Amino acid sequence: MFSKDTYIKRRQQLAQDVKQGLILIVGNSDVAFNYPANQYTFRQDSTFRYFFGYDIQGLIGVIDAESGEEYLFGEEVDMADIIWTGPIPSLKERATEIGVRNSGTIKDLRNLMDKAVFDGRRVHFVPPYRAENVEFIADILHLDYRYIQAYVSKELIAACVKQRSIKSAEEIAEIEKAIETAYTMHTTMMHMAKNEGTFEYEIAGTMEGIALAGGGPVSFPIILTTHGEILHGHDHSLQIKKGRMIVSDAGCENNMGYCSDITRSVPVGGKFDARQKAVYEAVLDAQLLVPTLCKPNVKYSEVHLAAVERLGEGLKALGLMKGDIKEAVKQGAMGMFMPHGLGHMMGLDVHDMENYGENYVGYDKKNIRSTQFGLASLRLGRELQEGFVITDEPGCYFIPALIDQWRAEKKCIDFINYDEVEKFKDFGGIRIEDDVLITKDGCRILGKPIPKTVAEIENEMTK
Amino acid sequence: MFSKDTYIKRRQQLAQDVKQGLILIVGNSDVAFNYPANQYTFRQDSTFRYFFGYDIQGLIGVIDAESGEEYLFGEEVDMADIIWTGPIPSLKERATEIGVRNSGTIKDLRNLMDKAVFDGRRVHFVPPYRAENVEFIADILHLDYRYIQAYVSKELIAACVKQRSIKSAEEIAEIEKAIETAYTMHTTMMHMAKNEGTFEYEIAGTMEGIALAGGGPVSFPIILTTHGEILHGHDHSLQIKKGRMIVSDAGCENNMGYCSDITRSVPVGGKFDARQKAVYEAVLDAQLLVPTLCKPNVKYSEVHLAAVERLGEGLKALGLMKGDIKEAVKQGAMGMFMPHGLGHMMGLDVHDMENYGENYVGYDKKNIRSTQFGLASLRLGRELQEGFVITDEPGCYFIPALIDQWRAEKKCIDFINYDEVEKFKDFGGIRIEDDVLITKDGCRILGKPIPKTVAEIENEMTK
Repeated sequence: MFSKDTYIKRRQQLAQDVKQGLILIVGNSDVAFNYPANQYTFRQDSTFRYFFGYDIQGLIGVIDAESGEEYLFGEEVDMADIIWTGPIPSLKERATEIGVRNSGTIKDLRNLMDKAVFDGRRVHFVPPYRAENVEFIADILHLDYRYIQAYVSKELIAACVKQRSIKSAEEIAEIEKAIETAYTMHTTMMHMAKNEGTFEYEIAGTMEGIALAGGGPVSFPIILTTHGEILHGHDHSLQIKKGRMIVSDAGCENNMGYCSDITRSVPVGGKFDARQKAVYEAVLDAQLLVPTLCKPNVKYSEVHLAAVERLGEGLKALGLMKGDIKEAVKQGAMGMFMPHGLGHMMGLDVHDMENYGENYVGYDKKNIRSTQFGLASLRLGRELQEGFVITDEPGCYFIPALIDQWRAEKKCIDFINYDEVEKFKDFGGIRIEDDVLITKDGCRILGKPIPKTVAEIENEMTK
Repeated sequence: MFSKDTYIKRRQQLAQDVKQGLILIVGNSDVAFNYPANQYTFRQDSTFRYFFGYDIQGLIGVIDAESGEEYLFGEEVDMADIIWTGPIPSLKERATEIGVRNSGTIKDLRNLMDKAVFDGRRVHFVPPYRAENVEFIADILHLDYRYIQAYVSKELIAACVKQRSIKSAEEIAEIEKAIETAYTMHTTMMHMAKNEGTFEYEIAGTMEGIALAGGGPVSFPIILTTHGEILHGHDHSLQIKKGRMIVSDAGCENNMGYCSDITRSVPVGGKFDARQKAVYEAVLDAQLLVPTLCKPNVKYSEVHLAAVERLGEGLKALGLMKGDIKEAVKQGAMGMFMPHGLGHMMGLDVHDMENYGENYVGYDKKNIRSTQFGLASLRLGRELQEGFVITDEPGCYFIPALIDQWRAEKKCIDFINYDEVEKFKDFGGIRIEDDVLITKDGCRILGKPIPKTVAEIENEMTK
């Protein structure tokens, strides 16, 4: 954990921003894997961890935004438990450790909530995303669990987003540790990707083992595929074959809960062929443009458009696009090649704070999400600020079903050279991703550089 | 998946055993990790997988026990999905693949259930263990989700237990594949355990990576600890130190969902000291006795007691126990050293079918669970049958809090030499576990033998 003061200050700021009512922050509990006693590895709720620190199941924090009084609730352990679990601090001790004055059981929490409801006080909570917590909140606040999302607090969401968007130096140090582990994950992938016939799951499993051996889980289910054009795929069942690119999108959480999120795309066997090299370098050009543009007060939606334009220029040079690329971007033509956004915030969540709702995190009143295919998928559109940690992850994909659909609809025929594109239907996809910190007057790519140019990757793959 | 016929026969047998009403088998859905779109790696419900085969989220199977009519329900994929997921079979195709005649959407399922409820037909389901499925079943059957466990079907539980308890040759082959992966997990652990200063999570993480690279998840969160006396511990935060034993209890699920569950205990550094060797061989003696006793019609509770007695004789030779060991066992004295059961069933679940309720799986009308401390924790007490796959996992622990408690209560002072036991409070624990198939007239330890004797382990640890 960070120091006691870190958590005290975060909670004080939160109370000050929310102004009135009670703030209810429900930690996660264990989730059954295949029967009640066999559970998934515990994952704490990020909001709870940010304000109350503990990576332990079954805790609930409450802050009175008016009086400043703070509470930590949970089930007290008894002597019988200690025989099985070894010595465990009391709830009181845990509360003191993070500077919280009051502690109590779940029954005490129920009493506090009943009193709040009776007194007509507002109880703020952020959107729960697990059925157990939906039921728990509904139960203690006497709400219908089926409509719980109607009662979430926009004030609390705004106050959480305000603080968590700006990463402190100690948070950035943790993120860089997580990237250090991702370095080993991705270079190991490069070594394994030399060997045709290896199963994708062997590589993905080994990478996940490296994350776990580093002290935390993967930050999301690893994407490791020779079919990078399948964007929503967690399938790892194929044997890798020469001629295919592997898209490897993977990161970890370190033991403090901070994430990394890195993508590398490499040729099976270790050598790019001419076509792979050409598309790869078009994507890399776009990816390298991004850090030259990122600085405070620049809208990330503008950076997205600039990166997409750069990619479009590259594809034009390859004969896949044609005409005025600026206009092509405006009309959304690039969506066929890159139907996703350039990046997102990262922190305690790989898509940081996404449980609050993407539009509360990545957009604001001045910056409304586009509805254009491709740009609509951009998770972060608002102005960058010092302390943001974001991802820079352009990609280029040849998705047969999408190409067929657009061609049939004669979509963007002034800009897309469909006859050429047809020849790439067997290509797959490429994505390249780094994690970037916005600094006072620019930005910094976080962590130890992971092989990224064609030469660097081919060299790493000889090892 | 197994052949279509396997699933057809299993379902026909189930319908025949349940006799009347509708059998509702709800597959698992994805569970949010830290926000709705970031999910834990999917784990199918074992009952669904056993009868309907698919390892895919969001499917529900129904069998009409009277007409024999069968249904597969789920959400149909649309063209927009296919752009992101690649080609996907239709529900109809999926149903046909496993010999199910009817398929439909969740709305169709609701209609079928409404009709059943209206007609007063019984709808059988087994106890749901995830909040999402509790809510879903409550919703489609118009029940209060808070009382769902009151409506589970004992007839369906009995029919499932009857079939799933007896493993077929093809199931045993899958279990042996999972043990093959566990072999690599545990021998890797032995190699890593040589190096003092390694963190427990580095070893556990590497082992989990081996499971994943083998095609499936771990069958339960790995127990890997230099404090084996803490039975309910998944902490991996310590650096391993010479003088401690590592208890490594870990297995995997293979890509067909079948489990392994193996425990090895090894000395940090690679050499047993005299005391470790002595306790280890006492546990090993008990562990090796078990396969000599296991055969059809023998009660596993009797085997447990025989193993515990053998352990007691070993501890008596070490001066930790005294007096008549048969009588000591009868009075429950061994519970202080081994407060858990000798083993459990294993199959698609590491504690097979535990979601149905342990007593429905491991006990029956003739064999009631004991209430004696230690023996009460035995999950399998009934008579063994040909085709059972069970674990053989005695252990010996020196739990300071438990020793203090028993000594203060003067518990079993005629049998336990507390002055000697005091000297072992810094020892930790030892457990040794293999997976065993009950055969026609005996049993067979499954899988490639994993180093187990002192000599074998010390030899493996030189590698």
